[in-house]
Amino acid sequence: MRTAFADLLGVEAPLVGFNRSPGVVTEVSRAGGLGVLAATVYTASQLDAQLHWIEERLDGRPYGVDLLIPSKMARGEAGDLVASLRAQIPEEHLRFVDDLLARYQIPELPTRADGADGWVAGLDPAGVDELLDVVFAHRAALVASALGSPPPSLVSRAKEAGVAVAALLGTPEHARRHLAAGVDVLVAQGTEAGGHTGTIATMVLTPEVVDLAGDVPVLAAGGIADGRQMAAALALGAAGVWCGSVWLSAEEEIAQASVKRKFLAATSSDTVRSRTLTGKPARQLRTAWHEEWDRSDSPGPLPLPLQPMLVSDAMRRIARAAESGHPGATELESFFIGQVVGGFTELRPAGEIARSMIDDCRARLAALGGLASDQPPA
Amino acid sequence: MRTAFADLLGVEAPLVGFNRSPGVVTEVSRAGGLGVLAATVYTASQLDAQLHWIEERLDGRPYGVDLLIPSKMARGEAGDLVASLRAQIPEEHLRFVDDLLARYQIPELPTRADGADGWVAGLDPAGVDELLDVVFAHRAALVASALGSPPPSLVSRAKEAGVAVAALLGTPEHARRHLAAGVDVLVAQGTEAGGHTGTIATMVLTPEVVDLAGDVPVLAAGGIADGRQMAAALALGAAGVWCGSVWLSAEEEIAQASVKRKFLAATSSDTVRSRTLTGKPARQLRTAWHEEWDRSDSPGPLPLPLQPMLVSDAMRRIARAAESGHPGATELESFFIGQVVGGFTELRPAGEIARSMIDDCRARLAALGGLASDQPPA
Repeated sequence: MRTAFADLLGVEAPLVGFNRSPGVVTEVSRAGGLGVLAATVYTASQLDAQLHWIEERLDGRPYGVDLLIPSKMARGEAGDLVASLRAQIPEEHLRFVDDLLARYQIPELPTRADGADGWVAGLDPAGVDELLDVVFAHRAALVASALGSPPPSLVSRAKEAGVAVAALLGTPEHARRHLAAGVDVLVAQGTEAGGHTGTIATMVLTPEVVDLAGDVPVLAAGGIADGRQMAAALALGAAGVWCGSVWLSAEEEIAQASVKRKFLAATSSDTVRSRTLTGKPARQLRTAWHEEWDRSDSPGPLPLPLQPMLVSDAMRRIARAAESGHPGATELESFFIGQVVGGFTELRPAGEIARSMIDDCRARLAALGGLASDQPPA
Repeated sequence: MRTAFADLLGVEAPLVGFNRSPGVVTEVSRAGGLGVLAATVYTASQLDAQLHWIEERLDGRPYGVDLLIPSKMARGEAGDLVASLRAQIPEEHLRFVDDLLARYQIPELPTRADGADGWVAGLDPAGVDELLDVVFAHRAALVASALGSPPPSLVSRAKEAGVAVAALLGTPEHARRHLAAGVDVLVAQGTEAGGHTGTIATMVLTPEVVDLAGDVPVLAAGGIADGRQMAAALALGAAGVWCGSVWLSAEEEIAQASVKRKFLAATSSDTVRSRTLTGKPARQLRTAWHEEWDRSDSPGPLPLPLQPMLVSDAMRRIARAAESGHPGATELESFFIGQVVGGFTELRPAGEIARSMIDDCRARLAALGGLASDQPPA
């Protein structure tokens, strides 16, 4: 399946596997696709170790790295970003979260965590630069910007290093901004996707972006977890697919068993686009957590990055308790996931998922070719 | 493009054109697809005249009829459905709509209209039967149920007459109910569609429904307005496509010029799923009308059929004023439309739209066949 994207990255099949688990990233690349590591959850030294681990297992095959580089976020004073942001969280919000945890009887953590402070510090321009230093010290073939257009410094650094730059988008307007910033790959993410996502569906967004992208290859994201959906994305004019949610059904994915069980039980109607995890609309599993934030006495979510600073300790307490079967925590536990969760029936090795997507896509494309000439599909 | 649906209905291409305008219905059928008339907007005698007009122009080619047969709605006393329903509309809602029209200075209608009373009377079982009598007195090849599973009386009547029964759905659960009711065709409608629609996107819903439908052909609906999207639906396993919104860009569509102009100017971000027109969530153009209903002092929409009874006179007053360029009415005017509205650039003859979709789909399928064998697409 040679497309402009497959040729640009030197991969056999235009399938990107986006995930935070190095085990998933390597298996997708080894299956002939491109594994892309969600790097923002890691500190610079953690990321360095992850990329070493990945490269040792890839025999020179390409892989990529995804960074969250927010273009718009609340800003603190230079030098004390975290403290100045933390001071902006209203008392009402802190009380709401404390009360919620108390009513569900969620135990405290055994040791005090730093909340999202480390993550927020990493959003500081200096923190992002530190992560980029690690990326460019390795041989990633693609760097992706998950939120907003990549800054000129990243684009010029990547061009020098021969690294492709990708950027995610949810509207044609985002795509125009990314093209102006000089990206090499556009990732058009439909509303059905897990994580940060807009309102336009993949079926509509993909051809709209293809029509304005000129020679820049477009990957379709959102709603793609099998070979049929991959073939549909290619039919829409995409040069490949960017898949995130499907890897939450992979054995190598680092999510804990309790949330994977919830995913296996969920239907395609069980997700919600909510600002309660990150402060920006992100699709996730709908649970009691969202009912609580929808209550009439809820103060409503704060903007990025205040909301993750507000709730990250709570999410850790909930996850830890859910892992050991705590009933209240099990009700509340959630995580980012797209509508494809309804198709999850079992956990499988990531490599098997990737290979079956690629093989099924190829078979489906051949059958569609037969349909064009009025021969019955294979 | 011989699919199970094309074979069942005896059409050359598995493209359904769903519209209330007889001129669109005939042009889609003449282009090799299947025109389906949205019949609920008509009385029995109007429908009879429309079907005569359509059949005169089709030289025996097949066409279909779509009826709104709600399974759940507020019910009045037998014998005086309209009056008993009208009594259920709260004073607060009547005041809200009157105030809204006054603030936008929308002129009254020259003669008193009957509101949605005629339409509501047609929702009565007796009214639906009267429409069905007209349908079965003609030679429609397909009868579709737009809301809910078709009642056993309709299914048995259709089987006797050799007419295929289709039903629209927004979740796999709806699909199971329709299959149990004995439908011949499932129409899986994604959230991006115009009109009544659920939350699951076409990309996710279509293969889910295909997997549970067995031999029953599935049409994909929502987000399909060009040959690429039609090819994508076939890639997802659909036996064809059901298109509604795209015909609002047809010259033959009976919408007035003012709303067609708004559609041509709209982007794919300019729709909203709202209960303010019918009482059930339906995708439509987002306008000042929705801002008003979102205000903190809004009483919120009523259930079907109370909401259309509440607002239909208002919508007529707004439409009539918008047609002559009234500024307030132009701000408020809306109509059902899907996210594909962002692709509308000009009005075209319906037959040209249908033929280009079919031709482009065929070319795209051939190119995808080439991609499977690693030959560059045509």
